[in-house]
Amino acid sequence: MEKLTLIKVGGKIVEEPDTLQALLRDFAAVGGHKLLVHGGGRSATKVAEQLGIESRMVDGRRITDADTLRVVTMVYGGLVNKNIVAGLQALGVDALGMTGADMNILRSDKRPVRAVDYGYVGDVKEARGDALALLVRDGIVPVLAPLTHDGKGQLLNTNADTIAGEAAKALAPYFDVTLVYCFEKKGVLQDENDDDSVIPEINRAKFEALVADGTVQGGMIPKLENAFSAIDAGVKAVVITRADSLASGGTRIIG
Amino acid sequence: MEKLTLIKVGGKIVEEPDTLQALLRDFAAVGGHKLLVHGGGRSATKVAEQLGIESRMVDGRRITDADTLRVVTMVYGGLVNKNIVAGLQALGVDALGMTGADMNILRSDKRPVRAVDYGYVGDVKEARGDALALLVRDGIVPVLAPLTHDGKGQLLNTNADTIAGEAAKALAPYFDVTLVYCFEKKGVLQDENDDDSVIPEINRAKFEALVADGTVQGGMIPKLENAFSAIDAGVKAVVITRADSLASGGTRIIG
Repeated sequence: MEKLTLIKVGGKIVEEPDTLQALLRDFAAVGGHKLLVHGGGRSATKVAEQLGIESRMVDGRRITDADTLRVVTMVYGGLVNKNIVAGLQALGVDALGMTGADMNILRSDKRPVRAVDYGYVGDVKEARGDALALLVRDGIVPVLAPLTHDGKGQLLNTNADTIAGEAAKALAPYFDVTLVYCFEKKGVLQDENDDDSVIPEINRAKFEALVADGTVQGGMIPKLENAFSAIDAGVKAVVITRADSLASGGTRIIG
Repeated sequence: MEKLTLIKVGGKIVEEPDTLQALLRDFAAVGGHKLLVHGGGRSATKVAEQLGIESRMVDGRRITDADTLRVVTMVYGGLVNKNIVAGLQALGVDALGMTGADMNILRSDKRPVRAVDYGYVGDVKEARGDALALLVRDGIVPVLAPLTHDGKGQLLNTNADTIAGEAAKALAPYFDVTLVYCFEKKGVLQDENDDDSVIPEINRAKFEALVADGTVQGGMIPKLENAFSAIDAGVKAVVITRADSLASGGTRIIG
């Protein structure tokens, strides 16, 4: 099968012109089929503030009332997405910006109200790998904004990590998929005080050993569990790295 | 050749939930290959106002400084476009929202500063009919926002009528294209005081006669001249009608 690399980058790096340019150059240099999934939370918070709309977060998730949904639709689907697309086109990458509503690629259910009412937030129900594969095979590079739809006309704010994971799984029947999550460290570190102590490869046995000896702890545990769940669903490898280290590797998680 | 209908609707109709829903239903009912081009000026003015950005217009064209470009990128590319896409998907139309930067479908040059500095406004230089035809033949319905790019990473605000005309011309080698411009009247009127006196068909000879006898005058003359120029460039027919009369006809302009 042909290879495909799906890279998820967080908000900050795509929201500042200098880091965005560096990222787009690094992304343009990635060979073969590829997709980009981006965030945009800082810009959304800023635009909301300018519009006098209060940003409320619970456990790092944005409470999305009707006004906030308008803001994230503007910021994620318009401002951030289209600037990435124009920047990639300038580098010769045939980018196509999309939300989950476009070509119905990501359908979700509005999150049920339990302890918290997250508002217009969607949990992905179905990702259309066939539609994405069709585009990718035509040489197109989808750039996905963190928005989905419910199939009944409602847009929904959706976590970008989840979108990346679901899109990667949906593409697994069509390509050898490597899913790359960029975060603030160069990878999973052997020594949390040494940024260069990146563990190059982790399989499930090693993961369990690293948890048992305390090397991997806290927020890194669910991150790696998500990675293994993507691998169980057919994704070939998950890479955890820093956006400015796309070429040099990070930590590769394999089955 | 297969038929394709390209419909351009102005801002107001896509910016109010009731009229938008009616339009989307009418658009969904149009048979065969189709595209939609939309505006969004009223929403842009409103969001700009909420952000404390003054909207300046010259001859009905928006002066687009850096802040205004951010607003139109958010509103046209995000808010208006993605709500249309989600609405069409709910009606079973496989819509894909795009700006001219997406798949590089519409490249433009920043308008040179002459009597007026329009700022980040683009005049279309090249429309990629091949890319649009590829999508359309896959059963996808492109929904175009009035934004283009210069190929060097810069988004540019671009007149929606122009985008519709250029896209129609670029698609003419691939399809029998009918270009539909929606405006506030049901068509070109024989009697300007009688909204039902729509002239069903105008060819060039009839156009000249209508201008000579004063039936067609003022702003309708350049509108019809643009229609004939699209026909000269290979578009089969241009229809001028009202958005709520898509099915019933309007005025058909032919070569």
